[in-house]
Amino acid sequence: MKETPGPGFVLKDVPVPQIRDDEVLIRVKRAGVCGTDVHIYEWDDWAKGRCKPPFVVGHEFAGEVVEVGKLVTDVREGDRVTAEGHIVDGRCPLCRTGNAHVCPYTKIIGVDRDGCFAEYIAMPATNVWHLDDAVSFDVGGIHDPMGNAFHTALTAPIPGSTVLVTGCGPIGIFAVGICRAAGASRIIATDVNDKRLALARTMGADDAVHPQDAQRVVQERTNGLGVDVVLEMSGVPSAVHQAFALVRVGGRVQMLGIPAKPMEVNLATEIIFKGITIYGVVGRKMYDTWIQMTQFLRSGQFDPRPVITHRFPLERFDDAIAAIKGGEAGKVIFEVG
Amino acid sequence: MKETPGPGFVLKDVPVPQIRDDEVLIRVKRAGVCGTDVHIYEWDDWAKGRCKPPFVVGHEFAGEVVEVGKLVTDVREGDRVTAEGHIVDGRCPLCRTGNAHVCPYTKIIGVDRDGCFAEYIAMPATNVWHLDDAVSFDVGGIHDPMGNAFHTALTAPIPGSTVLVTGCGPIGIFAVGICRAAGASRIIATDVNDKRLALARTMGADDAVHPQDAQRVVQERTNGLGVDVVLEMSGVPSAVHQAFALVRVGGRVQMLGIPAKPMEVNLATEIIFKGITIYGVVGRKMYDTWIQMTQFLRSGQFDPRPVITHRFPLERFDDAIAAIKGGEAGKVIFEVG
Amino acid sequence: MKETPGPGFVLKDVPVPQIRDDEVLIRVKRAGVCGTDVHIYEWDDWAKGRCKPPFVVGHEFAGEVVEVGKLVTDVREGDRVTAEGHIVDGRCPLCRTGNAHVCPYTKIIGVDRDGCFAEYIAMPATNVWHLDDAVSFDVGGIHDPMGNAFHTALTAPIPGSTVLVTGCGPIGIFAVGICRAAGASRIIATDVNDKRLALARTMGADDAVHPQDAQRVVQERTNGLGVDVVLEMSGVPSAVHQAFALVRVGGRVQMLGIPAKPMEVNLATEIIFKGITIYGVVGRKMYDTWIQMTQFLRSGQFDPRPVITHRFPLERFDDAIAAIKGGEAGKVIFEVG
Amino acid sequence: MKETPGPGFVLKDVPVPQIRDDEVLIRVKRAGVCGTDVHIYEWDDWAKGRCKPPFVVGHEFAGEVVEVGKLVTDVREGDRVTAEGHIVDGRCPLCRTGNAHVCPYTKIIGVDRDGCFAEYIAMPATNVWHLDDAVSFDVGGIHDPMGNAFHTALTAPIPGSTVLVTGCGPIGIFAVGICRAAGASRIIATDVNDKRLALARTMGADDAVHPQDAQRVVQERTNGLGVDVVLEMSGVPSAVHQAFALVRVGGRVQMLGIPAKPMEVNLATEIIFKGITIYGVVGRKMYDTWIQMTQFLRSGQFDPRPVITHRFPLERFDDAIAAIKGGEAGKVIFEVG
Repeated sequence: MKETPGPGFVLKDVPVPQIRDDEVLIRVKRAGVCGTDVHIYEWDDWAKGRCKPPFVVGHEFAGEVVEVGKLVTDVREGDRVTAEGHIVDGRCPLCRTGNAHVCPYTKIIGVDRDGCFAEYIAMPATNVWHLDDAVSFDVGGIHDPMGNAFHTALTAPIPGSTVLVTGCGPIGIFAVGICRAAGASRIIATDVNDKRLALARTMGADDAVHPQDAQRVVQERTNGLGVDVVLEMSGVPSAVHQAFALVRVGGRVQMLGIPAKPMEVNLATEIIFKGITIYGVVGRKMYDTWIQMTQFLRSGQFDPRPVITHRFPLERFDDAIAAIKGGEAGKVIFEVG
Repeated sequence: MKETPGPGFVLKDVPVPQIRDDEVLIRVKRAGVCGTDVHIYEWDDWAKGRCKPPFVVGHEFAGEVVEVGKLVTDVREGDRVTAEGHIVDGRCPLCRTGNAHVCPYTKIIGVDRDGCFAEYIAMPATNVWHLDDAVSFDVGGIHDPMGNAFHTALTAPIPGSTVLVTGCGPIGIFAVGICRAAGASRIIATDVNDKRLALARTMGADDAVHPQDAQRVVQERTNGLGVDVVLEMSGVPSAVHQAFALVRVGGRVQMLGIPAKPMEVNLATEIIFKGITIYGVVGRKMYDTWIQMTQFLRSGQFDPRPVITHRFPLERFDDAIAAIKGGEAGKVIFEVG
Repeated sequence: MKETPGPGFVLKDVPVPQIRDDEVLIRVKRAGVCGTDVHIYEWDDWAKGRCKPPFVVGHEFAGEVVEVGKLVTDVREGDRVTAEGHIVDGRCPLCRTGNAHVCPYTKIIGVDRDGCFAEYIAMPATNVWHLDDAVSFDVGGIHDPMGNAFHTALTAPIPGSTVLVTGCGPIGIFAVGICRAAGASRIIATDVNDKRLALARTMGADDAVHPQDAQRVVQERTNGLGVDVVLEMSGVPSAVHQAFALVRVGGRVQMLGIPAKPMEVNLATEIIFKGITIYGVVGRKMYDTWIQMTQFLRSGQFDPRPVITHRFPLERFDDAIAAIKGGEAGKVIFEVG
Repeated sequence: MKETPGPGFVLKDVPVPQIRDDEVLIRVKRAGVCGTDVHIYEWDDWAKGRCKPPFVVGHEFAGEVVEVGKLVTDVREGDRVTAEGHIVDGRCPLCRTGNAHVCPYTKIIGVDRDGCFAEYIAMPATNVWHLDDAVSFDVGGIHDPMGNAFHTALTAPIPGSTVLVTGCGPIGIFAVGICRAAGASRIIATDVNDKRLALARTMGADDAVHPQDAQRVVQERTNGLGVDVVLEMSGVPSAVHQAFALVRVGGRVQMLGIPAKPMEVNLATEIIFKGITIYGVVGRKMYDTWIQMTQFLRSGQFDPRPVITHRFPLERFDDAIAAIKGGEAGKVIFEVG
């Protein structure tokens, strides 16, 4: 829990949440730890401006339904589920036209209301997503970040494309595997960390190189043309510039990584004269992304399990946060129940 | 050659074609035999209405450039090439907006002018397509029908989709392999011939079944919803009806197979109430399809070689035609030079 | 009401509907009469197979909210509203990916449950659509068929296109006006009835002609190329064939009109060799179509009022049905409250 | 002409250009003056880096064909024409997939080779565009900048959209008129100059306001949501920030205006968290944009003539440049022949 403003989390006994008539109660089995949780742990400026302690942290999880509100018709006790963590109003113009992922009334679990680093979590039934029998709780627990990667990759044209993935954190590495499974013809991944580059190769990158080698490799692999698609997954300014430099004219840059502060961009040479399209990625499309994800997992064409590198019990939250900050982890998860 | 109206071909010595300033002369190495060639061989009603003997038949080939017109700047003697067999005017509104595949002024080699079942063929330089070093003449010689399959498959959304391919002739089987490489989550193929179904499995079909089993299998694999995409590759009326029946509501049917005559369609129940989209496939997109094809071949993600089941020298044209008519062949090719 | 199986309607006193917690009660002000109502009135084969009397007929309406269920948060007493008449489950894969218009669990008011030819109707709050201040109850009462026209027109590329509208019933005439407002460069409309052709001209058709003149006019207006887009709004087999004949190669045919029975189609020459795209239109996109409709009405760029040609009180339902069957009416509405 | 490096142009007698076999010679009737010409006139850093005097300046024109190369089949002496000024290689992967506007081998007339501020210009026949009878030389002479505006506007979804146009130079004002003709529901235009705002109103802007009022007006007109589409036509940093601020979440920003130097962008808050799409506009799509333009002009739905505010003979080039630099002009043209 984040009990009070200031750095760190605390472990604490809290009452089991009470559900509303349109909600369900879920016993958490696995929960993923995200960079956002690190921000909240460290209580940085973003966290100070957004979060109101006390609240339970965590927004990636899977578990088992143990109680169902009386208005709920399509979720039952015992169902194995995960959930979309963005709780939207469902009635605004955005929600009504397939743009719920940018609903201005979004509340995020673990940020704006109690989250999933706990034994139980209450979720609106409309946000619940059933796990296929073939999908383990481990994999169920990381649907949220995998969904970011699916959204980033599959809103670009991937079959037959050359793809550059800048940044091999967990979401970047997922994206490598998704592009492989979706028919990319050549995938080049960059990161500063060799362990992460090795993971990217495991997930299907043809080339996994340090940023300083990216330009040379892209030139070689694309006859000097540049890649068709860049997935910018790092938020690092030098990587953003590289994304603009190495995408081919008329190509597409999907931006998921969040730069920490404003940066200088030469809009003329980096964007306009290149005739490129840029897409800002927020969350997961509701629920196109979720259906695609289930299809990829059910068929076995994409297997995210190698990305999970660290597992901790809930009480070792300090170690989990440290593993992420170390910069060498793939996905870090809690084994809760 | 088709020397005179009436059934059959003849083998004959003809002069080497003279090229124009914007053309190149190609020594043919491999040539593919197509159902269209069978129509011309049999001299059916379509052939009688369209073709004007004498002319050299054949429109699928690869070979080596041996002479280059003086206006040609980007093809050289010795280049390993294949070619788009639809010669378009390049100036009409269709050609100028990415729709050259339906240019009303199209002339097809081997149908409207001399084709490739010969030692040499003259081609406009704009139609020439260079073969990657990794691509053999065998594979180069079947770019035309593979291109039909790429056009059919990749103008539908394939990554994560369930796909039904009705008809496992060579183009249908190519399409199975392309969908596999492009990230389809489940591919179901149908045909009446077991050898072709076996080839479909080799190329990546999850299920390859007789038409009478298709409904049951589609229901099982899609939770009763129907498939996202159908590629109709047979032109058989019962398969067309099955395409409409087994695509999900809001899904997409790509029609390549040519029904021999008009057929009854219940537009209300088969198309309109289902809210589906239908797309009629003509040739190959110039040159989006060709670039995609080269990307898939260069990366190795798609390998069409298992589809080639029969090889003949040019003089055994009667055997080649017989092999196709037998209904069990994959792709039949001539080894010319 | 449709009280019993068999032809005709009856006028009858029924209790005011009781609303559920997630519904609202609406006092009906205006209701539109549709061809579907005529089928139910005549009790044809479709009606016999689908409808289960007794029930209140009618699915197009606008009115004022008079009671609100206790779970409803965004509709209030006194609100001026219309409603989407397709009540969908909201949870199936289609509903969750922007395809609610083809939800397999759809219930339609006035067909599958009580409709709006009555003083009051109960509607789920999620289906309620608020009327802009600038929109009268007259116009509010015909949002359902206008929505069909918006869906048909705006899922095709209209700005700068040449458009053929085959069939000038109310939805066809709405579509003419929408295409005009959406930037079509040339609109040709066909019908057998001169009054309807005159209405089409009023709504913005450049040419409004009898079907036998359509080919000549299309050839003249498009340099012999054919139109970019056809909106098939009649369901008449000869018009469907004309749609396929007069669309340009690579063009698009939107099919809304429902042929009464199967018809012969030459898939090869009418669809496949032409390289066209066909789209089957069902209902209205939820709620993209509704937002577009509101934008067009609020701005005044589209004004459907000239299409309303007949008004009746509810008790004159026989006259209303007769007006539609006469074939010369535009839109026929009931003035209820 | 630009005879030597350094500021200014000179008037000079030069030989009539000799055409190649695939070119045509055009007698210039009208020529448009562009901001690019001002850069060359002033010999700024961009001009110094790009241009190699001596050469004839000017890239917007219309005229009459007076001589035709012997390989040219579809242009004849006496034809009334304009031309695409980007001469592309036609064979690279970009050209072959509908992306010729970003061909890396582009040569621009009046920049990289002799242009149109002259009595005669030689053009490749493939770049020639025939003027409809209804289109005057005045309008023909400004197809290049109108084409920029068409490309910018019509690659966004315009029918029913709310649109903000930031910057009312000639291309911005054209874009206002195009959006009006293409069915935008609400158009808000901004500029610092009142004459230009008046022109924007003439061309169809609902609101034409100073930048400091833009936020308030956009909020009012869109219920606080922001506009669906921004066309950024100014290149002014404050307008770019306003574009990102006032587009709705999930909306689209088309960038045509060229910022003079790098600027600070908060990619997180301005692009990524907003989930928007950005598109960099280069030239005109070949030749989709040209066909759309001809359709809009032929139908009369868009009339650019009010934008032409100044006319000069060629020898008054200094006055023409001064008129543009004054900041109050619409389109400035030369009357040549």
